[in-house]
Amino acid sequence: MRIVVVGGVAGGMSAAARARRLDESAEIIVFERGDHPSFANCGLPYYVSGEITDQQDLLVQTPESLREALDIDVRVRHDVIGVDPAAKTVDVRTPDGVETVTYDALVLSPGARAVVPPLPGLDSPRVQTLRTVGDAVRLKDTVDSGARRAVVLGAGFIGLEAAEGLRMQGMAVDVVELAPHVLPPLEPEMASLIRDELVRLGITVHDGVAATAIDSRFDDDVVVLGDGTLLEADVIVLSVGVTPDTEVFAAAGVECERGAIVVDAHGRTSIDGIWAAGDATLAADRVTGLRRPVPLAGPANRAGRLVADHIVAPETARPIPHPLGTAIVRVGELTAALTGANRSTLDAAGIDYRTVHLHADHHAGYFPGAEQMHLLMHVRGSDGLILGAQAVGRDGVDKRIDVLATAIANRMTGPDLIDLDLAYAPPFGSAKDPVNLLGMIAENVLDDELELWYAEEVDDPGYFLLDVRDRDEYDDDHLDGAYLVPHKEVRARFDEIRDAAAGRPIRVYCASGKRSYLAYRVLRAAGLPAANLSGGLTTLRALVPADRALV
Amino acid sequence: MRIVVVGGVAGGMSAAARARRLDESAEIIVFERGDHPSFANCGLPYYVSGEITDQQDLLVQTPESLREALDIDVRVRHDVIGVDPAAKTVDVRTPDGVETVTYDALVLSPGARAVVPPLPGLDSPRVQTLRTVGDAVRLKDTVDSGARRAVVLGAGFIGLEAAEGLRMQGMAVDVVELAPHVLPPLEPEMASLIRDELVRLGITVHDGVAATAIDSRFDDDVVVLGDGTLLEADVIVLSVGVTPDTEVFAAAGVECERGAIVVDAHGRTSIDGIWAAGDATLAADRVTGLRRPVPLAGPANRAGRLVADHIVAPETARPIPHPLGTAIVRVGELTAALTGANRSTLDAAGIDYRTVHLHADHHAGYFPGAEQMHLLMHVRGSDGLILGAQAVGRDGVDKRIDVLATAIANRMTGPDLIDLDLAYAPPFGSAKDPVNLLGMIAENVLDDELELWYAEEVDDPGYFLLDVRDRDEYDDDHLDGAYLVPHKEVRARFDEIRDAAAGRPIRVYCASGKRSYLAYRVLRAAGLPAANLSGGLTTLRALVPADRALV
Repeated sequence: MRIVVVGGVAGGMSAAARARRLDESAEIIVFERGDHPSFANCGLPYYVSGEITDQQDLLVQTPESLREALDIDVRVRHDVIGVDPAAKTVDVRTPDGVETVTYDALVLSPGARAVVPPLPGLDSPRVQTLRTVGDAVRLKDTVDSGARRAVVLGAGFIGLEAAEGLRMQGMAVDVVELAPHVLPPLEPEMASLIRDELVRLGITVHDGVAATAIDSRFDDDVVVLGDGTLLEADVIVLSVGVTPDTEVFAAAGVECERGAIVVDAHGRTSIDGIWAAGDATLAADRVTGLRRPVPLAGPANRAGRLVADHIVAPETARPIPHPLGTAIVRVGELTAALTGANRSTLDAAGIDYRTVHLHADHHAGYFPGAEQMHLLMHVRGSDGLILGAQAVGRDGVDKRIDVLATAIANRMTGPDLIDLDLAYAPPFGSAKDPVNLLGMIAENVLDDELELWYAEEVDDPGYFLLDVRDRDEYDDDHLDGAYLVPHKEVRARFDEIRDAAAGRPIRVYCASGKRSYLAYRVLRAAGLPAANLSGGLTTLRALVPADRALV
Repeated sequence: MRIVVVGGVAGGMSAAARARRLDESAEIIVFERGDHPSFANCGLPYYVSGEITDQQDLLVQTPESLREALDIDVRVRHDVIGVDPAAKTVDVRTPDGVETVTYDALVLSPGARAVVPPLPGLDSPRVQTLRTVGDAVRLKDTVDSGARRAVVLGAGFIGLEAAEGLRMQGMAVDVVELAPHVLPPLEPEMASLIRDELVRLGITVHDGVAATAIDSRFDDDVVVLGDGTLLEADVIVLSVGVTPDTEVFAAAGVECERGAIVVDAHGRTSIDGIWAAGDATLAADRVTGLRRPVPLAGPANRAGRLVADHIVAPETARPIPHPLGTAIVRVGELTAALTGANRSTLDAAGIDYRTVHLHADHHAGYFPGAEQMHLLMHVRGSDGLILGAQAVGRDGVDKRIDVLATAIANRMTGPDLIDLDLAYAPPFGSAKDPVNLLGMIAENVLDDELELWYAEEVDDPGYFLLDVRDRDEYDDDHLDGAYLVPHKEVRARFDEIRDAAAGRPIRVYCASGKRSYLAYRVLRAAGLPAANLSGGLTTLRALVPADRALV
């Protein structure tokens, strides 16, 4: 049997290697359009930053190592330009001309290419993408040859990694994002923390604004923004997203939807004998069921492996899991991570959900070095099923998101998190881990022991705002019109609060939502209509511009 | 309603605080025998080490803060010395004499006390335990007043934390452990890595040997070991385990088993109106079903909270989860953690299991700072259910164990781990996370694509040992009698290997088990009887003394 794989990075190489381990007798050929198979795609920004110093470190495998270890015939600079499913052949453009190669099983893993928006001037030689080792080397060379000003178009994960890398090289860096905030998949209250960190790093952020043109008439290029801002640049990194690279296969009759290859649970395409895996395929989101490509390394690797299972032993192959879209990025001293759905995808899917916020120390507060971590979780309103979670902080963000991703994969509810038996010693966590605490808040909300109000509602009229922090915190700043009663005095001053509220619903708040929860319980126990600010002023400050709503 | 709580630390204080949040009208009284409620039990060793410098940091709450925030009546130095379930009263020894207090609901959370073995001389004033803030302050004072040599009896979690803390203070430290290795719940191949780290820290480890006497006739005490070793000490820390502190309650008729209070799923004891939570109670292990006390902070906190739920709202209270016994400890630059069952508890429960080992980088190998992490996992032979997991390494051990604890709680199988969608960027993990890789190895074992042999079998005769590392690694050291064929040459030299093996089963090995798996697949595909060394020489070296089995 001859297995032909198109694309020699994550999905394709996982399929090829697994196929070899399962079937010593198969002939396995991998066609890779680029110069390198199996390179460290996710490592490219760290070569630009100078953290990875040796280009060779980006080359995880070489054609030679793959031939020796796995007897795989990897052919780089081989571009598959046609497929004939009836004849079971592919046409391949090689350095020496076009050849036709037969296959018994064909695995399509062409990946995705950078989206090129219709932007006048984008053909400037100063515009670069960051998708290949060659791109990374070129960008680093540009930096090393004295480039001083960079504009990064797109503030997604790779855009921010590139921006930080360039900034670490001493460049002046502007980031431009069309969406209202950086890292669009993050909720705004999380993204604003990352925006602050970018600013702290000395990166200028332009969010909620489009680049409208690149003007190359001068010594430096000038990026023109929709608000009239002009940004000089001697290098422009284009990072506004990726799109499946599937034209060749669609032309051959492989069913695609919005450019992505449609596959079944085992990676089979619409054509017998052809499988597909990775960034070019359409996946159904685990939480919402919405179908979209998920261009992430982990899911691509997993799908490639399972495609090989299905080719070699279809009767026992497990289905390809629906991706959660778990993702993470380091930005300066912070980490941002998310798993599952966000408000925007939940709204699009018409799912009813509740959101809880938590600010908690990443390990025991009494142990030196405790840092505040910010988390939020969406749970289904009807039954508390966890739908998504996000976190921003320093150490330990990755751990909590991985636990929550595991929880979502197992269809746990928010309250189920309370029972998780996580590893605790003071350097690592707390007896009640932030994940357990998220569960407790969710349980209280679902059981109606806790009614929340949200920072977005801060300007609603008709409410009595009760600040239960200490006097000095209140004096520093507080919500306009808020009445101060420190939480420890709420019982003693209950009558005063009731009279001041004068029948209005009471919106309680503190810094994080913890002290105000205790105060809220006292008010509710007495039958007063009250609600507690989700995430407290910490979340509110992340959402509301500093010049508003706070005295 | 008056709720009386006996014991004001983890379980008891969680019950009291939750009861208040659910019921503003209840009268809540907590009797704490010691000087402090809700203190940072797990932080005590870090006060000894000097990392926590302020004693006040150990006092998470005070009676005053608990009264103010939660209207809880906490009475310290109040020792409950009797219970009359018929009259619903407790007798309490207070600083001013004995008083009798009535209750409507009684929560027993007396905790556990240090086990005191029958060791001659243990009444020496130099012998200390480390269970209370007072103990920690006393031990630190002893260090500060010039103590130079410490002997720690017991190399469990707290024993090792104490030993390291004393060593960080510049003391000479000996650790004595009766069990064959330090951290007895760890498997030996994991524990030996921790032993090496203790030695690196300058701590002398005496394992597999009993302390038989303490001789106080000289200026320093002398700890006598079973092998004749004499250890001078001016401080001796007794840390050989804990035992439930339940005599008072057993005397009142509360059913106990091997000294621990028997409770139902909601924490109810055998006597109506009396609940119990924490280290003093008996719990059924989640994996094996074996009943034992689990003296850990997390489970105690959770049980206390659920006991309060059941007292206040029995109809909606969830059951108390069965603990997994997830635990973690920092030792020098290493972290050791475990969750679920180990070989010893699985053997005791008569459960058939398979074990897999993995040595993997804690994040992408091409990103600077990657450190090798050591993991093992036990899965049920019949269906692959994950039964337990352990890890030792530097960064990221806590994350993997928390994910695995979440997996066990959800009754995932080993192969299910492959599908987990964990957060990947080069500073945090790999596209195939170590947890995913553990799942792949387990799947291969369960599917009979991988037959393992284990380091414990290294001396079995009749096998052909095949070393598939490179020549220079082989020349450094190798198993006695092993035949060298680097893994990339296995295909080309197949006939030579077959002839050399001469019909004997082939035991393949490399450093970690990865290269040898590739070689193993080639041999198996050709029908040769072969097996791959689980964890490779890295695991073998951790188990087998250096002077044996390696040339």
